[in-house]
Amino acid sequence: MSTKKLAAEAIGTFWLTFAGCGSAVIAAGFPNVGIGLLGVSLAFGLTVVTMAYAIGHISGCHLNPAVTVGLAAGGRFPAGQVVPYIIAQVVGAVVAAAVLYQIASGAPGFDLAGGFASNGYAEHSPGKYNLVSAFLMEVVMTMMFLFIIMGSTHGKAPAGFAPLAIGLGLCLIHLVSIPVTNTSVNPARSTGPALFVGGWALQQLWLFWLAPLIGGVLGGVIYRWLSNEPEGEITGR
Amino acid sequence: MSTKKLAAEAIGTFWLTFAGCGSAVIAAGFPNVGIGLLGVSLAFGLTVVTMAYAIGHISGCHLNPAVTVGLAAGGRFPAGQVVPYIIAQVVGAVVAAAVLYQIASGAPGFDLAGGFASNGYAEHSPGKYNLVSAFLMEVVMTMMFLFIIMGSTHGKAPAGFAPLAIGLGLCLIHLVSIPVTNTSVNPARSTGPALFVGGWALQQLWLFWLAPLIGGVLGGVIYRWLSNEPEGEITGR
Amino acid sequence: MSTKKLAAEAIGTFWLTFAGCGSAVIAAGFPNVGIGLLGVSLAFGLTVVTMAYAIGHISGCHLNPAVTVGLAAGGRFPAGQVVPYIIAQVVGAVVAAAVLYQIASGAPGFDLAGGFASNGYAEHSPGKYNLVSAFLMEVVMTMMFLFIIMGSTHGKAPAGFAPLAIGLGLCLIHLVSIPVTNTSVNPARSTGPALFVGGWALQQLWLFWLAPLIGGVLGGVIYRWLSNEPEGEITGR
Amino acid sequence: MSTKKLAAEAIGTFWLTFAGCGSAVIAAGFPNVGIGLLGVSLAFGLTVVTMAYAIGHISGCHLNPAVTVGLAAGGRFPAGQVVPYIIAQVVGAVVAAAVLYQIASGAPGFDLAGGFASNGYAEHSPGKYNLVSAFLMEVVMTMMFLFIIMGSTHGKAPAGFAPLAIGLGLCLIHLVSIPVTNTSVNPARSTGPALFVGGWALQQLWLFWLAPLIGGVLGGVIYRWLSNEPEGEITGR
Repeated sequence: MSTKKLAAEAIGTFWLTFAGCGSAVIAAGFPNVGIGLLGVSLAFGLTVVTMAYAIGHISGCHLNPAVTVGLAAGGRFPAGQVVPYIIAQVVGAVVAAAVLYQIASGAPGFDLAGGFASNGYAEHSPGKYNLVSAFLMEVVMTMMFLFIIMGSTHGKAPAGFAPLAIGLGLCLIHLVSIPVTNTSVNPARSTGPALFVGGWALQQLWLFWLAPLIGGVLGGVIYRWLSNEPEGEITGR
Repeated sequence: MSTKKLAAEAIGTFWLTFAGCGSAVIAAGFPNVGIGLLGVSLAFGLTVVTMAYAIGHISGCHLNPAVTVGLAAGGRFPAGQVVPYIIAQVVGAVVAAAVLYQIASGAPGFDLAGGFASNGYAEHSPGKYNLVSAFLMEVVMTMMFLFIIMGSTHGKAPAGFAPLAIGLGLCLIHLVSIPVTNTSVNPARSTGPALFVGGWALQQLWLFWLAPLIGGVLGGVIYRWLSNEPEGEITGR
Repeated sequence: MSTKKLAAEAIGTFWLTFAGCGSAVIAAGFPNVGIGLLGVSLAFGLTVVTMAYAIGHISGCHLNPAVTVGLAAGGRFPAGQVVPYIIAQVVGAVVAAAVLYQIASGAPGFDLAGGFASNGYAEHSPGKYNLVSAFLMEVVMTMMFLFIIMGSTHGKAPAGFAPLAIGLGLCLIHLVSIPVTNTSVNPARSTGPALFVGGWALQQLWLFWLAPLIGGVLGGVIYRWLSNEPEGEITGR
Repeated sequence: MSTKKLAAEAIGTFWLTFAGCGSAVIAAGFPNVGIGLLGVSLAFGLTVVTMAYAIGHISGCHLNPAVTVGLAAGGRFPAGQVVPYIIAQVVGAVVAAAVLYQIASGAPGFDLAGGFASNGYAEHSPGKYNLVSAFLMEVVMTMMFLFIIMGSTHGKAPAGFAPLAIGLGLCLIHLVSIPVTNTSVNPARSTGPALFVGGWALQQLWLFWLAPLIGGVLGGVIYRWLSNEPEGEITGR
């Protein structure tokens, strides 16, 4: 496998984590004119729109272990490349958290105790949603995310629009679910900030690997069934 | 008719209702940084953008009884498939409301008395608009929605862009009309939450079947006249 | 000239005025979760996005006397059709204001003294901008609007994207200029609400015909020069 | 080189600076319904979306010295045209600031001491971010901006979508970084307002030339490496 594919995945996941989490840490609660959860949702969505057009033709632009695993389950990605892709994604996300920390800590009053855009449930859910709600939300959202990815990159879907559909899908997912878990659907994005916050963020990190991976596999498998795609061969754009 | 078309309609309407109503129930009024009616409008619109790219090539992605009936009236959909499509859409919407209820009730202070994103008029209109205003708004908005759907899927319209035009059209409809009826233009989307809220929501549900269906037929018929489409044959993309 | 072209212009301008002004009257200031000027800007922009995909292939989707005149000045529209287009646009806008009035007046506390989305300057500018600022803003914005329309429909621009570019351009124009004049750049859109508000709105209406028409001609002529389009022939998509 | 390319760059940079900075000066903080940092971010992004469709086929639509230099470093633009492009861009931005000043000063209470959308760091950063954070943010953001531009205009990327990817990328950059530096990533856009504000804005202007130019070169060089583009020849769309 090409080193450049892995480099593209690392850079792309850097961008998703840096700009997505950065919008939350830096701009969401800015006094009077802050971008709020709507702005954060748009930011996460646009990281994917921009990267999918920029590197989609290099690596496929997964940027997310749940996407890589879900596409493999859906017959769109070779199983042998799953682990290196995930490693590249996690590296990109951790570097993103480091750079974001460097920048964010240059403002008066910055404090990691604000959460640093980590994902959480129960007492660490923004809206105090319990474990069951958090788990169910992450499964459903990642399932539907993979469903959208599989569908919009299908050979019969209009060519060229998948980056918009997928990125705006991630925006939509955030519009609904930030109050529940701060929205992960992406284990790499969750891992970056959790390493800096430590404590509860690391203790709850398991959910943001497990639930998105389950959801991703479900979405990939359901869409493959729906669209009659043959098993055992790589399809789609 | 293919079972998979019906499955696609059910899943797509699940998404429209779950994510659209979910954004309203979970995120619209979140303290300080809530997404507001602008975010809810965007969420409803993006459910259609994402699904139209994902399943448009499977079922046409109606997700809405008023769309199915309006397209039939406009000569774009066979009358014989109307009823099964509507049943699939309602099933998807009811499942969506059930899953949303499960998740939303996992937060402290959740209460169905908040409306659970149900549609209403008069004392149950968000802005207390009377029955006439509510009925007229739903008719006009659904009429224009079908007009946009018929036009953007016309053979002379640019290929591939209809999902954006239609989804952003639904966003626009919500931007204007949430204060009047909480915006339906979709009887399936109205039925899901109403079954959980019961009482007034069920008593007022008739309007959110009748007005959108009238509007849908009007929009389909007017566009067919405008574009000189022949009667008695299925046209459009 | 086809009656259906004029019907399309009337319906499209109805939509621009009904949904654009409707978002301002009904939803902008809704308590706590109102869509604000950002939502109104998006609404106006999306009226054009949706209609341009729906009727662009029928009438060209001008929806605006300044666009019709500017395109004629830019060599893209036959002079002989300017007057009937403008009449159809004004008819659509007036009907829109009437329907909007009927709906909006069905809420407690509705009052035309709130402005009903009319355009104004000086004491009737939302931010109390004086006549010179208002005139200059309307000229510059309409000039740039025509520049965008001429450019994005040029034969060398990517096919199919013009409705997005033009509609998002109208959104952008509103993002900047609502505080100055409530944003017109469209004499038909200004005329509809002014007829209902009367008084100052009618007295100030001259500016919202004169400035957009001047700006439209400037934009059409400048772009024609820039792109070396021949005079005396109809070009563009 | 064609005079019309330079005219297009000047008009396009006028639009970016006038509408982008105008949204901040005029509409961001409008009482109760202001567009906030989200609206300003969208406005800057849409200036590029609209102009890229309107003049992309004339000049390439750089509108930004860091883009011109970065594209030259990335092998996409001839070095000999860099200086005239930059001059045209700065001229457009300065005229934009002049017109914006004329309009904005027509409202009661306007004061250049409000910043007039100038970029700044430390005490002149909106969120009081220090010099290191400001410099790092501008470098990273311009680097990623060029990465997106290089990628979305690559021959293998879907045709026609680059203006959306690039414009929405600029929107995203603003969503994250306005609190840090008021967001430049564009030396021309920074120069226009700084000339009117003078004092600190001129003293800090060096950073908003140096950091974006460094970032632009980094982004161009990294993407060229990633996509295996040959050196010494002009590639891309």
